[in-house]
Amino acid sequence: MNNDSLDNQMDLSIELIKQSKKIYIGSHIQPDGDNIGSILALGLALKKIEKEVFIVKTDEIPSDYTFLPNIDMIKDYDEKDNIIDLFIALDASDLDRLGSKKTMVLKANKVLNIDHHKSNTYFGDVNVVSENSSATGELVYRLIEKMGIELDKDIAACIYTAISTDTGSFMYDSTTYETHEIVAKLLKTGIDKNNININLYQNRSLERTKLFIKALDGLETCFDNKVAIVKVTQELLKESKAKMEDTEGIVSFIRDIAPVEVACLLKEFEKNQIKISVRSKRYIDVSQICEKFNGGGHKRAAGCTIYEDVEKAKELILEEIKESFR
Amino acid sequence: MNNDSLDNQMDLSIELIKQSKKIYIGSHIQPDGDNIGSILALGLALKKIEKEVFIVKTDEIPSDYTFLPNIDMIKDYDEKDNIIDLFIALDASDLDRLGSKKTMVLKANKVLNIDHHKSNTYFGDVNVVSENSSATGELVYRLIEKMGIELDKDIAACIYTAISTDTGSFMYDSTTYETHEIVAKLLKTGIDKNNININLYQNRSLERTKLFIKALDGLETCFDNKVAIVKVTQELLKESKAKMEDTEGIVSFIRDIAPVEVACLLKEFEKNQIKISVRSKRYIDVSQICEKFNGGGHKRAAGCTIYEDVEKAKELILEEIKESFR
Repeated sequence: MNNDSLDNQMDLSIELIKQSKKIYIGSHIQPDGDNIGSILALGLALKKIEKEVFIVKTDEIPSDYTFLPNIDMIKDYDEKDNIIDLFIALDASDLDRLGSKKTMVLKANKVLNIDHHKSNTYFGDVNVVSENSSATGELVYRLIEKMGIELDKDIAACIYTAISTDTGSFMYDSTTYETHEIVAKLLKTGIDKNNININLYQNRSLERTKLFIKALDGLETCFDNKVAIVKVTQELLKESKAKMEDTEGIVSFIRDIAPVEVACLLKEFEKNQIKISVRSKRYIDVSQICEKFNGGGHKRAAGCTIYEDVEKAKELILEEIKESFR
Repeated sequence: MNNDSLDNQMDLSIELIKQSKKIYIGSHIQPDGDNIGSILALGLALKKIEKEVFIVKTDEIPSDYTFLPNIDMIKDYDEKDNIIDLFIALDASDLDRLGSKKTMVLKANKVLNIDHHKSNTYFGDVNVVSENSSATGELVYRLIEKMGIELDKDIAACIYTAISTDTGSFMYDSTTYETHEIVAKLLKTGIDKNNININLYQNRSLERTKLFIKALDGLETCFDNKVAIVKVTQELLKESKAKMEDTEGIVSFIRDIAPVEVACLLKEFEKNQIKISVRSKRYIDVSQICEKFNGGGHKRAAGCTIYEDVEKAKELILEEIKESFR
């Protein structure tokens, strides 16, 4: 979407919001910092202009984000008895990302789709989709600014979280000068950035730390060290008293080994259900690799699920990774 | 130093630079990204206004930074035969930080001291010292801007490196909205930020990775997990085929464990020479701890050397850390 049509879609979404009273904002399955920060920020902003806002919990909120202001606004809602004037999906590339709440979308009078994934399916009545934005939080910032709603510390903290987590603290290629300009404005509200960053990045539990060290003991590299693989099995989780969400950070750690181009983390959710996170550094488009297994994502960060045991899943994903180097 | 006097010192330093022809810019001992980025950026800028610039190598340049444009401008210079109109020290809190090049400073007609360390001793004829700046690179940016020298990609890449490395990629508390505004301007020059970030943060050698994993196997925590300690001995280095500079990243990794307030890395340079890096998270001023052993630094990051064996050094530093919690 180019800038003109993005502007146009922004205007249309403001119209939609103005016309709506009961607005539902949906989180997506396995919500990340960008999703959670974005839904909270937009929810808080729309409350300021007297909308009836419902922020819908689609999946568990990881403990990493429970420090966020107004996190309790994310709730289970029963859509049966309610009219949904407008459903806003944030950071969801397609309807399936909304899990069981997909029914709400289908029931809603209008749907607004705000996202920065390249693979977005444009499922909304209005689609504010920009793959040039570092995070959905950036698009939320622009929308709030365009609506003339004044930033406050709570909104700013949520957008900061969204952008920071989706850019690896402003490190990823997706970060632009506009990202930094937005963040400068967020910091001007006087948010306690230090507290946010400690919660996001300096708050690894002892269990997660132990899992990290144990998992790395099994680090394997291949293809002249261009590919690094780590497995996290149910057994390893038990040993470390950790949960699968505690694998956060492992895949980027192994991507950051100098010769590595593709890093791969195999997570054994069940014996024959292996979720795989793939990252790349410079030139391999890992979303293409994951699409082969009905997954997807971004060029440098993508995921998929393989319904085989962990060794077979490893073999299959390695084949496709190998193929991608041709 | 308040903003008025900082502005005033900036004006005075511009006068000094204008009046000088042969300008020496000194790196400090154990140069880091802020030091190296700052000396290169200022050197390149002053060359643009036809100054004779000598960037002086005081100590080895870590391989992490050899990707920087014009890194070869940092050279060994013999001061014997040269007139030094102006010596500029960057990121050096006191004269001793200039190691053997201290003699150059003493010989120079004028000395300009640009730094952001709280502990700066104001050793220059002009002192641009601001502990509110996230990095010396920020002060260099302001100076270059104030002199009306146009930024180019090479200068911008060096300043970006200086600021990014000294703020942990814009994560530390020292990062301000002004930091982000400066970085936005740096990115507008079109620097290859991705390449810089890959070099800085995704370029850990296999040896360093192995050292990291092995060192963490020896992680100890105490005081209700408020303190975390890791030791890197000569033996461990040998096992991992790594160098002491490969300990980079270990101390911040252990600081980032949730209950940890103070993280401590003991580096056995020689049997009775233990260099210690100390980090804190929220409230302990670690520069005060390190000052007890004639070291220093910032509130959240400081260092010192203890001339005892590693076990004794550990005992001594733990005593002081314990004291700091009172």
